[in-house]
Amino acid sequence: MRAIEIRGGKGGPDALAIEHIPTPTVVQGQILIRVRGAGVNRPDIVQRQGFYPPPAGASHILGLEVAGEVAAIGGGVTRWTVGDPVAALLPGGGYAEFAVVDARHALPIPKGLTMVQAAALPETVFTVWSNVFERGRLVAGETVLIHGANSGIGVTAIQMAKACGARVFATARGAEKAARAKQTGADIAIDASAGDWVEPVKAAGGADLVLDMVGRDYFEGNIEVLKPEGRLSVIATLTGHRVELDLRKVMLKRLTLTASTLRAREADEKARLARAIEERVWPWIEAGKVSPLIDKTLPLAEAGAAHAWLESGSHFGKVVLTP
Amino acid sequence: MRAIEIRGGKGGPDALAIEHIPTPTVVQGQILIRVRGAGVNRPDIVQRQGFYPPPAGASHILGLEVAGEVAAIGGGVTRWTVGDPVAALLPGGGYAEFAVVDARHALPIPKGLTMVQAAALPETVFTVWSNVFERGRLVAGETVLIHGANSGIGVTAIQMAKACGARVFATARGAEKAARAKQTGADIAIDASAGDWVEPVKAAGGADLVLDMVGRDYFEGNIEVLKPEGRLSVIATLTGHRVELDLRKVMLKRLTLTASTLRAREADEKARLARAIEERVWPWIEAGKVSPLIDKTLPLAEAGAAHAWLESGSHFGKVVLTP
Repeated sequence: MRAIEIRGGKGGPDALAIEHIPTPTVVQGQILIRVRGAGVNRPDIVQRQGFYPPPAGASHILGLEVAGEVAAIGGGVTRWTVGDPVAALLPGGGYAEFAVVDARHALPIPKGLTMVQAAALPETVFTVWSNVFERGRLVAGETVLIHGANSGIGVTAIQMAKACGARVFATARGAEKAARAKQTGADIAIDASAGDWVEPVKAAGGADLVLDMVGRDYFEGNIEVLKPEGRLSVIATLTGHRVELDLRKVMLKRLTLTASTLRAREADEKARLARAIEERVWPWIEAGKVSPLIDKTLPLAEAGAAHAWLESGSHFGKVVLTP
Repeated sequence: MRAIEIRGGKGGPDALAIEHIPTPTVVQGQILIRVRGAGVNRPDIVQRQGFYPPPAGASHILGLEVAGEVAAIGGGVTRWTVGDPVAALLPGGGYAEFAVVDARHALPIPKGLTMVQAAALPETVFTVWSNVFERGRLVAGETVLIHGANSGIGVTAIQMAKACGARVFATARGAEKAARAKQTGADIAIDASAGDWVEPVKAAGGADLVLDMVGRDYFEGNIEVLKPEGRLSVIATLTGHRVELDLRKVMLKRLTLTASTLRAREADEKARLARAIEERVWPWIEAGKVSPLIDKTLPLAEAGAAHAWLESGSHFGKVVLTP
């Protein structure tokens, strides 16, 4: 099959090139998916740069999410039949014509969605569900501050938070991105490149939850804007990971800080998340409250161009590769 | 009535002296308690030193917990009758012959306990319940590391964690205190004054939860010993509150950090805690699984000596004043 390899093991976007490699085979509990769409995510870029090696047992091929049809079924799998359209979360291997995955990490494609739209769901929906709703405990009536509103995760987080009945503040870098965050559903959207976002958020009443991928540069502000019993959920640290923390501030406001990555979790935990998401988030998607925002679709062979585009920060929504 | 005042508004242990002041009167929703025992806690010392002013509306008298008989009842209170023995959590006012309290913050005295024993319960039990069980989410089969095992909170935390079916690691400063922590129920007790506690805890498998009151000096070690999905619950910062945090470590292990104080919480929240504790912790006490460890009982007039003793760090368990 055709798949994207990283020439030299790591490098810039131009290191990505089509190669012909053996089609993977399923083992017990797995399905093989004929890939129709593969979502591109920031961790793919970090892995390409050589800073995020795949976990033990995972494919060395990039790609954390796909949609397509079930092409083969391993032993013990009863839920899926060959031909079923599915979307799946992968530990790697998505930038290819075929990908294998734990059958429990696949979900049916929500009614009304194309393969490309479905391919844009798993990484962002799993991440937002886990960090905003489970770890972050967001409930209706609360206020959530979402940074990086132009990212795939940002857009999904805004939509899911609104679907659950929360008030949403969003930051993005640039007036146009802030305007689009507002169109996406944010109640208040702040252009963080134009000045301070901390005071406007505090003036608007602060936040019960902050979803952050910025890390060091936003850390003190995040603590500052949280209301009593507030939560900070960190999913990436784009500006650095070493921060200073004033435990007294955490104590006095009774804050909770948590941070997590998705990829390193146990297969059983991802299976549990998949079922929770199918039950709670899929209905929001089928009701049109949450819809994957596709920024760009590119052929698999242009994976390098997709990375360069994401790295430029010009995107709003997801980039999907089509084999 | 007689009560302890702080001469000069703040000072050393010898600033504490008996004065005669008006007996407080109950308002709607309150009860007056004839104090038979008043627990002495570290925040009392910090308040005496002038660093922990009482919250708005609270008595300026020291004392966060008492046991005694109900002596008068405000409007709207149906649960208590004059003469009922109760233990109560106070926002202040315990170092006195009488204290007023929100009627919902009182609990019946567990069967078999003396007034002095009951007076030693509220501050530690509320703190441990809230931080170890609710915020820290400790469950049977998990491992908790409890620092400051010789404090009232440490002793209670060891007992409550064992009662719930958890494995308990404890640290204390001194071989004798470590030995007593082990007698109190800790599975492994480490003399932290003799050397590093981090490696022994890691060698024993790490912790799902750390209950910390040390702050800065233990912070990095606490992060180090936590297992994946581990929680750090900070209730005081005796060695300092400004710490360095590596968000990447938090992310990779999917940790949760939380910190809180009890006194600043809303009256409704304390009422909710009181009911949860009566339902979940009181049965442990009545079954003998959790029993207040009284280090010393002193007459009210010797509050200064009680503070000096606590400040010396020589105590193991609670110090209670008797009016």
